[in-house]
Amino acid sequence: MQIPEPLQIAIDELSKLPSIGRKTAMRLALHLLSSDQERIDSLIHSIADLKAKIGFCTDCFNFSVNELCDICSNPKRDKTILCVVEEASDIIAIERTNEFSGIYHVLGGVLSPLDGSSVESLNIRELLSRLRESEIKEVILALNPNTEGESTSLYLAKLLKPLSLNISRIARGLPIGGDLEFADEATIGRAVLGRISL
Amino acid sequence: MQIPEPLQIAIDELSKLPSIGRKTAMRLALHLLSSDQERIDSLIHSIADLKAKIGFCTDCFNFSVNELCDICSNPKRDKTILCVVEEASDIIAIERTNEFSGIYHVLGGVLSPLDGSSVESLNIRELLSRLRESEIKEVILALNPNTEGESTSLYLAKLLKPLSLNISRIARGLPIGGDLEFADEATIGRAVLGRISL
Repeated sequence: MQIPEPLQIAIDELSKLPSIGRKTAMRLALHLLSSDQERIDSLIHSIADLKAKIGFCTDCFNFSVNELCDICSNPKRDKTILCVVEEASDIIAIERTNEFSGIYHVLGGVLSPLDGSSVESLNIRELLSRLRESEIKEVILALNPNTEGESTSLYLAKLLKPLSLNISRIARGLPIGGDLEFADEATIGRAVLGRISL
Repeated sequence: MQIPEPLQIAIDELSKLPSIGRKTAMRLALHLLSSDQERIDSLIHSIADLKAKIGFCTDCFNFSVNELCDICSNPKRDKTILCVVEEASDIIAIERTNEFSGIYHVLGGVLSPLDGSSVESLNIRELLSRLRESEIKEVILALNPNTEGESTSLYLAKLLKPLSLNISRIARGLPIGGDLEFADEATIGRAVLGRISL
C-alpha cells in the first residue's frame, strides 16, 4: 500500500523541520489527521502569523511587532550598556536570566567567509553608528563560544577600540551543574585561564 | 522582555503536538520565523490538505483519497484473509513488513469503558456485516498487546466464533534484536507460553 499522497507530502514537509526525523514527522502527521479542524486551523494561523506579524526592531534588529522592540522602547532599560548577540533568539535566552537590564544589538550572524557572511552582510555598520550617536558607555560581546564567534568578537573589539568604550566578552568556563571530570579540555583550559580571585 | 505575542502563540500551538516540548516548540517557531515564505506556505498547505483531502475507506476505514482505499480496490490483494487493527496508522506499520497480502478492517479503537469506548463506538457492526457478506475465511486480530487490546481481542474472538472462521491473533514474544536479559517478565512469560516446535 502506498501512503496517501497528502499524508506523504505532510510527512516530507514536517521532516524538513529541525530535530524532526521521519518517524516523528509521521507521528505528527497522523496526529494532525485525527485532530479537530479547529485545532488544525489555530496551528496553521499561528504559523502564518509568525512572519506576517513579526518584524525587526529598526534600532537593534530584535524581533518586534512595532517599529521599536519592547526593550528599545522601555524607559526602564539602561541605555548605557549594550549587549551584542548573533541572533534575535539569543536575546530571549539572555532575558530569561534576568541578569541584564541594558539594551541589545543583533548582528544577524558571525563573520564566516566560507558561508559568505562578511562585514557588509552583518549589522556592523548599524552598530557603529548607534555607538557613535548614543549614550552607550559599555559594550558586552555575547557571541557563541565557537571559532566564528571568537574571531568575530576579536574583530569587533579591534573595530570598537577607537571609540574608547568599556568592551567585554561574556565568560567562558564550566557550565553550572557541569562536572569537571566530563568537561572537554578546551572548556577546562578556558576556565583555568579565566579564573577569578576570591 | 516579553516574547512577541505571535511567537508565543506559535510556541503554544506547536507544543500541543505529541513529543514536542516547550524547548523544541521554541526552536521550531524560531526556525519558521527565519524560513522563506515559500517554505512556510508549503508546510501550511500540506497540513491543511491532510484533513481536507484524506478521508476513510467506506469498506475498511483505512485512510483513503477515494471512496475505496488502495488496498480494498487492489485486485491483487487476497480477499479471503482479513486483518483487524485498532487505527488506520497500524495498517501503514503492517504494510511496511511486506508479510501480509490480505485486506484490513480498522476498529477505530479498542473497548475501554473508562474512556467511553464501547462496542457501538467501534466499527464492530461493520466488521460483522463484512464477514457475513464476503468471501473472508480467515481473521487475524492485530490489536496492541496491552490490557485493552487483549480484552478486545478476546471479545471479538467470542463474537466471531459462530461464523466458523479461522481466527488468530498475532504472536507475542521477544522482539527481534531484543535481549532476553532485559526483557520484562510478561514478555518472556508470553514467549515461553507461545513457544514453537522446530
